[in-house]
Amino acid sequence: MTNVGIIGGTGYTGSELSRILCTHPDVTLTALTSRQNAGKKVTDVHTFLKGYSDISFIENISDAKDLDFVFVATPHGVAMNEVPALMDAGIKVVDLSGDYRLHDVSAYEKWYGHKHTDLENLSKAVYGLPELFRDKIKGADIVANPGCYATSAILACAPLMKSGVVDEDVIIDAKSGTSGAGMVPSPRLHHPTCGESIIPYSIGTHRHIPEIEMAVDMFSISHSKVTFVPHLIPIIRGILSSCYFTLKEDLDNAEIEQIYEKQYSKEFFVHYVKEPSIRAVVGSNHAHVGSQVIGNKVVAFGVLDNLVKGASGQAVQCMNLMLGLKEIAGINQPGLGV
Amino acid sequence: MTNVGIIGGTGYTGSELSRILCTHPDVTLTALTSRQNAGKKVTDVHTFLKGYSDISFIENISDAKDLDFVFVATPHGVAMNEVPALMDAGIKVVDLSGDYRLHDVSAYEKWYGHKHTDLENLSKAVYGLPELFRDKIKGADIVANPGCYATSAILACAPLMKSGVVDEDVIIDAKSGTSGAGMVPSPRLHHPTCGESIIPYSIGTHRHIPEIEMAVDMFSISHSKVTFVPHLIPIIRGILSSCYFTLKEDLDNAEIEQIYEKQYSKEFFVHYVKEPSIRAVVGSNHAHVGSQVIGNKVVAFGVLDNLVKGASGQAVQCMNLMLGLKEIAGINQPGLGV
Amino acid sequence: MTNVGIIGGTGYTGSELSRILCTHPDVTLTALTSRQNAGKKVTDVHTFLKGYSDISFIENISDAKDLDFVFVATPHGVAMNEVPALMDAGIKVVDLSGDYRLHDVSAYEKWYGHKHTDLENLSKAVYGLPELFRDKIKGADIVANPGCYATSAILACAPLMKSGVVDEDVIIDAKSGTSGAGMVPSPRLHHPTCGESIIPYSIGTHRHIPEIEMAVDMFSISHSKVTFVPHLIPIIRGILSSCYFTLKEDLDNAEIEQIYEKQYSKEFFVHYVKEPSIRAVVGSNHAHVGSQVIGNKVVAFGVLDNLVKGASGQAVQCMNLMLGLKEIAGINQPGLGV
Amino acid sequence: MTNVGIIGGTGYTGSELSRILCTHPDVTLTALTSRQNAGKKVTDVHTFLKGYSDISFIENISDAKDLDFVFVATPHGVAMNEVPALMDAGIKVVDLSGDYRLHDVSAYEKWYGHKHTDLENLSKAVYGLPELFRDKIKGADIVANPGCYATSAILACAPLMKSGVVDEDVIIDAKSGTSGAGMVPSPRLHHPTCGESIIPYSIGTHRHIPEIEMAVDMFSISHSKVTFVPHLIPIIRGILSSCYFTLKEDLDNAEIEQIYEKQYSKEFFVHYVKEPSIRAVVGSNHAHVGSQVIGNKVVAFGVLDNLVKGASGQAVQCMNLMLGLKEIAGINQPGLGV
Repeated sequence: MTNVGIIGGTGYTGSELSRILCTHPDVTLTALTSRQNAGKKVTDVHTFLKGYSDISFIENISDAKDLDFVFVATPHGVAMNEVPALMDAGIKVVDLSGDYRLHDVSAYEKWYGHKHTDLENLSKAVYGLPELFRDKIKGADIVANPGCYATSAILACAPLMKSGVVDEDVIIDAKSGTSGAGMVPSPRLHHPTCGESIIPYSIGTHRHIPEIEMAVDMFSISHSKVTFVPHLIPIIRGILSSCYFTLKEDLDNAEIEQIYEKQYSKEFFVHYVKEPSIRAVVGSNHAHVGSQVIGNKVVAFGVLDNLVKGASGQAVQCMNLMLGLKEIAGINQPGLGV
Repeated sequence: MTNVGIIGGTGYTGSELSRILCTHPDVTLTALTSRQNAGKKVTDVHTFLKGYSDISFIENISDAKDLDFVFVATPHGVAMNEVPALMDAGIKVVDLSGDYRLHDVSAYEKWYGHKHTDLENLSKAVYGLPELFRDKIKGADIVANPGCYATSAILACAPLMKSGVVDEDVIIDAKSGTSGAGMVPSPRLHHPTCGESIIPYSIGTHRHIPEIEMAVDMFSISHSKVTFVPHLIPIIRGILSSCYFTLKEDLDNAEIEQIYEKQYSKEFFVHYVKEPSIRAVVGSNHAHVGSQVIGNKVVAFGVLDNLVKGASGQAVQCMNLMLGLKEIAGINQPGLGV
Repeated sequence: MTNVGIIGGTGYTGSELSRILCTHPDVTLTALTSRQNAGKKVTDVHTFLKGYSDISFIENISDAKDLDFVFVATPHGVAMNEVPALMDAGIKVVDLSGDYRLHDVSAYEKWYGHKHTDLENLSKAVYGLPELFRDKIKGADIVANPGCYATSAILACAPLMKSGVVDEDVIIDAKSGTSGAGMVPSPRLHHPTCGESIIPYSIGTHRHIPEIEMAVDMFSISHSKVTFVPHLIPIIRGILSSCYFTLKEDLDNAEIEQIYEKQYSKEFFVHYVKEPSIRAVVGSNHAHVGSQVIGNKVVAFGVLDNLVKGASGQAVQCMNLMLGLKEIAGINQPGLGV
Repeated sequence: MTNVGIIGGTGYTGSELSRILCTHPDVTLTALTSRQNAGKKVTDVHTFLKGYSDISFIENISDAKDLDFVFVATPHGVAMNEVPALMDAGIKVVDLSGDYRLHDVSAYEKWYGHKHTDLENLSKAVYGLPELFRDKIKGADIVANPGCYATSAILACAPLMKSGVVDEDVIIDAKSGTSGAGMVPSPRLHHPTCGESIIPYSIGTHRHIPEIEMAVDMFSISHSKVTFVPHLIPIIRGILSSCYFTLKEDLDNAEIEQIYEKQYSKEFFVHYVKEPSIRAVVGSNHAHVGSQVIGNKVVAFGVLDNLVKGASGQAVQCMNLMLGLKEIAGINQPGLGV
């Protein structure tokens, strides 16, 4: 058994990691940190884990012994303070914050508004989207887990970009459930504000923009241009990204489907379907992509559960690859369906 | 025209008052206080009022001139600091907090946890439920506007209590939309927490308990006993209170309906219906009551929009009575229906 | 008083019309038709109207006497069977279906799949969007009330198109509440299907496409191209249309705002705001528009209540203009805000 | 491996069974029936099963070979036509309908409105609530799976009834998500009707009443009386039953907790917690119970996911017991938490 720890065990992604790991067949969750809950039994805070864990929260990850692997589920800016010691100790890491996603340091500093203090590990970090970068992840010591919006958008966009059939210019109109914003109460996430509404926000300023641009650029011939507008919708889990491209040639739906099937037909977690559905993937690490040609445009959809394939499930998928485990171990569950 | 002011113009009940008053045919909203927004145009904060108001928030109600009537829409404990000066100035008041609802000072201090500092006006305050205390309200200088849970429960319970056909012992299982909890973000009101759940809370400790007991007692022969359990449900506006009584005699549905019709058939805002519906009253000052006999029990339902009949609409109804205006002026709107 | 009738009084738009008209100061709702409810009191079906109406449903509008004005709130294909007799009788009409919206008969027959049988009145029909076609509506005997998606999109798009600062090519990613789909239960509108999801549908086949194209064309120099993708979101009332344009020149947010203010600053119901909000307009005839420049693109938002400004409220606004009444009569209410 | 079939593979309980069984370590799902989908691949209808199943729907269960176990997930009245042949063939059965729940045939015929045609197997059927009837289930050939409301109520009520500390008279105010009503669209389940409301229904007529009474009676000294009022709430999965009892003696919260812990402390799926939470159990076979003393009353809460512990998960739990498998096999997953 591999001993695994989580830094930041009370936030939504840390909590979701503990949910997944507690039934993982090949690893044992032996440490969760939480400043405010240190000393408390994990099941007293996360009652959904009753029967699955008997450990207590610790204050610092350095209080844990014999860890083989650590997930960093802290806010950005904090992760880069935690990672160096882990790496020095030979512990492999998946970071779920934004700290190791952008290879371009200046982009990081511009979008996040502070210096990056761990350039060494930043240069080693692999972008953890297994369906597109599986081989690199297998050999990595540190993986930067993609953001939830970014994952949904990139899964939908990458095959079209790679195939060269669309213009470089893409409009991404994304809709996210509220858990994507984290567990800290705020006016926008207050139920009376968002419970019967749809709220566009962070237009032109959302930190997933450079991440999507970076990922999309890896697949495009010249520099692509991303127009990204996120909207908050009144569901808890789930993202739908609607991505609009202009076709360079006259293609029909069957031809577009071919492009996606070529990319994903052998994937366990990503499925091209006629009608992508949040309910079909919610609670699971599966994602749906779909598309529809409209004149000389094509709209591509990427759908996933933001806490699983958009965060903690994908992080476990990366861990599995990094540790040489079965890729689907611990995340081999279908979506809820209803 | 009567000049009206609101103390506490940014909270949900203050905001709702401004929504109602801005189209009231007989009064003019001339002052809204807000510490954090003082100086800002009201429509810059409440964009839904665009076209309906051109005033700006003021810091203190004493900055306003020529007020004839004031609504106090502050948290409890604050209202009793504002009311004396208003009363001294000969301004009539409706207080929407809990400060003037409980005639028993010791009950107030027990449930609210602090001293009451305005016993003089407390003794004058009339409980503002027009369908049950209309005449007293007409002559009042200060009215304590009932709480939202209390209004829904009392409208359903009072006719049965008064008729003497039920035991004094009542169980009230109440369900409220999230706007009832106010505009301050909190973990329970965070969308990912409450958006797909129902959450019982404040069991045995909710401050509407003594208020319901007091009101119910006014109608019962001996002291009644109220078991009140509030639940938060994922809707924004609306309350349904399900009130369970034991019948003292063998009555059928038609006989129970008679009891309600005797009480409410001439009321404009309270309707006995077979299937009480939140959607039928939401956005309006109307309330539905309904009932069903089950063996020797009867369940009575009280349904209303917590921000209108459960707060600001009822407050305006009281103001109309206090000022000798048409009781339905400014609140003469049907519910949304859909 | 003007006597007004509604053909189709049980569907959502007919029901909403009755809600609005029952407090209209200048007209009296004297007739509602409903095949299934003929003979029943209106308030037995629409309990939200208790206290506001004492009429009963009739089977056919020809059973009503002395009507001065009729709203046709039937499905498309039915309306064109009702309108000729009304027009022949000198009764002015607002049709809320799609039957009289498309001036191009061949477009109608292509998108709706059946012949148009009332070409005479089709040629007279005016497209009922008062903020853009007020003068024509004033003189009209028959008005085709715009669709809800179309209204939200056109209000956002028209000022930019007219100003000539954007390319003719627009992508409209629209999100609608469920009441927009009408009152007939269906698998997609079943709560377990749509209650925690967002569902794109009718891509490339939705009947508002030719309507939006037609309206947008009126304002553009050459033929514009509309890519329209509607999504169903789990709210009851409300539409947000996010409309993406490419800027032809380098404009900033303030310059775009100028364009909108020039168009709408004097309008009572349409407001340019920084953060358009469904909650601010829900339950009212008001609409919000907003915009944000993102590089060489601009996203424009149109927000409204699909049953009011997107249907019945706008229909009443048109009626007011056609009858020479005050334009805001009966619809002079702010949005709910919360 | 044990071969398992499902009769009624498209409804919500059949669909949920397929979701659970597809990752069950000890059984193989080899047959799903569906009249409307016969011949189609299961994954074309249930897209959430992509990667988990390659079988196609069959029309009749008799078309399947070598079945060892069958779940009957049909409407009541249909199940009793299917069960005899299965039992004759030596196939063990869990029936998820109401056909085999009521031991009293006359009660069945009164509440369901038709004759029971399989009295032989009815007399053999064991009520499948493992935490209360585990030993009987282990030896059964046919198990009647409890209803969702009944399971939530009985788990909360049974310990108090058994302990003798409460009166026999219980009021159950239950709130259910919409998936409990099944997949057939109806006016009440139409999103615009139920999406922002709470709707009491089937008062005094709901078919879970005799079932709850029967189960509760098993634990009470004299005949108990159940007042059951179900309410529909706008969530998809989840039930909260609030059960009100009068205490016969003066007990405090700690003493009540003792009673529950005595019953459930060794259970894997049922947990006594201070704040029962739908989110903590949703998506899992776990249930929460909680309680609070209020004067001489006690309110007990039962919380579960109606499709898992309230239906298909519990059915699999019963199957595991009947087949001598590990009781938690295939359902060993924590709730979603968020």
